[in-house]
Amino acid sequence: MDIIQRLGAIRVMLDRAIPGFLPESTGPAHRLLEAMRYSTSGGKRIRGFITIQAAAAFGMETDQVLPAAVAMELMHAASLIHDDMPCIDDSPTRRGVSSCHMQFDEHTALLAGDALIIKAFELLAQIKDSPARPEAVVRVIGEFAQATGATGLIGGEAADIEGERQPVNEEMLSFIHINKTAKLIVAAARTGAILAGADEDALGILTEYAHHLGLLFQITDDILDATATEAQLGKPVGADAAAQKMTYPALMGVEGARRRADEIGQMAVVAAEKLPDGSDVWIPLVHLVIARQS
Amino acid sequence: MDIIQRLGAIRVMLDRAIPGFLPESTGPAHRLLEAMRYSTSGGKRIRGFITIQAAAAFGMETDQVLPAAVAMELMHAASLIHDDMPCIDDSPTRRGVSSCHMQFDEHTALLAGDALIIKAFELLAQIKDSPARPEAVVRVIGEFAQATGATGLIGGEAADIEGERQPVNEEMLSFIHINKTAKLIVAAARTGAILAGADEDALGILTEYAHHLGLLFQITDDILDATATEAQLGKPVGADAAAQKMTYPALMGVEGARRRADEIGQMAVVAAEKLPDGSDVWIPLVHLVIARQS
Repeated sequence: MDIIQRLGAIRVMLDRAIPGFLPESTGPAHRLLEAMRYSTSGGKRIRGFITIQAAAAFGMETDQVLPAAVAMELMHAASLIHDDMPCIDDSPTRRGVSSCHMQFDEHTALLAGDALIIKAFELLAQIKDSPARPEAVVRVIGEFAQATGATGLIGGEAADIEGERQPVNEEMLSFIHINKTAKLIVAAARTGAILAGADEDALGILTEYAHHLGLLFQITDDILDATATEAQLGKPVGADAAAQKMTYPALMGVEGARRRADEIGQMAVVAAEKLPDGSDVWIPLVHLVIARQS
Repeated sequence: MDIIQRLGAIRVMLDRAIPGFLPESTGPAHRLLEAMRYSTSGGKRIRGFITIQAAAAFGMETDQVLPAAVAMELMHAASLIHDDMPCIDDSPTRRGVSSCHMQFDEHTALLAGDALIIKAFELLAQIKDSPARPEAVVRVIGEFAQATGATGLIGGEAADIEGERQPVNEEMLSFIHINKTAKLIVAAARTGAILAGADEDALGILTEYAHHLGLLFQITDDILDATATEAQLGKPVGADAAAQKMTYPALMGVEGARRRADEIGQMAVVAAEKLPDGSDVWIPLVHLVIARQS
């Protein structure tokens, strides 16, 4: 299987599995539950893919690690719901359809994001019928929280907003990319590997790989926002420039950003060569991200 | 020590300890970090108190269970931040000062709530230098998530909003009170007891007690909203009636709600009599909640 087939197969599997991890949309909170389902359908499922492949690389079955892979996707979906809200990016569309607060309303979107964050932790705590020891589960939950909270994803979001209308500077830009994007990609990889029992040396290499992959993913995202069409992305384009966001295209132009993407991709490949499944999964994934059109 | 002294001593201890569990307010996300500190200062610390006393009742030291007690308070603070936002209760004040989005801004309040939710889980995963086994930590995290997410606190919030402008009915009202308030009180109690190694029988009684205490707490809250002054509560009063919220005073009048509070308090006392520290902590706590003025 090539990387596109692998990604596609896992995407289909996650698309089918995710609704089964969410509560039925009935009862007094049914709108909340519908919003959780609505906003977790679709997407590329890169983070869940990485968790599943990292587990597989160290010998853990997909079925066993599945709740953790879903947890990564739920946290990502939650961050997109809150990001799209009027008080942050005020984005009416996401993945080609109405964003959560447009489809439902603001309070439902706010609470659906909260509930998905919490559900992600619930799913991580569910990993027990697996080779993972409870110590590994506790470690994964602690690392996931550090990667996604004020010292990670949410801190990156906050810095991203603070960065608007400030002069672009590389230090701030780097902080935003590392926190807003790279740390969850790193957590997705480490979660799979820790649960599978990978040793610390292998974890270190995987962390380096995922860090570069995450940065690459954000730079290519910024390039697409500056160059792609709305039909390609399923969301408004040019939003970064309109909001005067700190991005690599804003710092060094689109061509400079492409060169930077190639450099970071090369660093990811160097790490990937030392990983199990490097040539089947991790190296092709780098090339796919560099070439991505959406 | 009587119950007021006990509560006061633990409140002071938590007030001092909580800032030490939060990241320093520096760097590109410093406003987010300031907002997290701002919104976790003050409050009665009932939930943290319950976790600490439940742990003590089954032989665990306060120092060891402290991160878990703080986790309860952070989740509660997060729910208040999001509740106060314009798209939910639109409340300008909280605990006698500006609410988070008024003191900072809406996007900072949104993200500070998210970050505090995540931090709560991080702190639970930190409990390891304790008699608690990692299996108990994983169990506590799973239960805490179920008690606070779509099947608990957040689901209760959503139902509370859906209930506005609907005819009051007791089934919906009961769903709101159980989910919005009682489940976190139950989780606070169970967290302390599970970490301390309480057996399942004792856990069952504690759960029954905390369920009634939580319902009592919400009914007295509703009564105060209908009868107290803003100076007493530190937040606007009469907001429930203005928003046509489903409350016991709306269903059965203030006197009816007081009688219901007495009945539920009596059920809590019956359970408390079977618990360790019942007459020192759990029974006086019921009487304190019945008599509360803020």
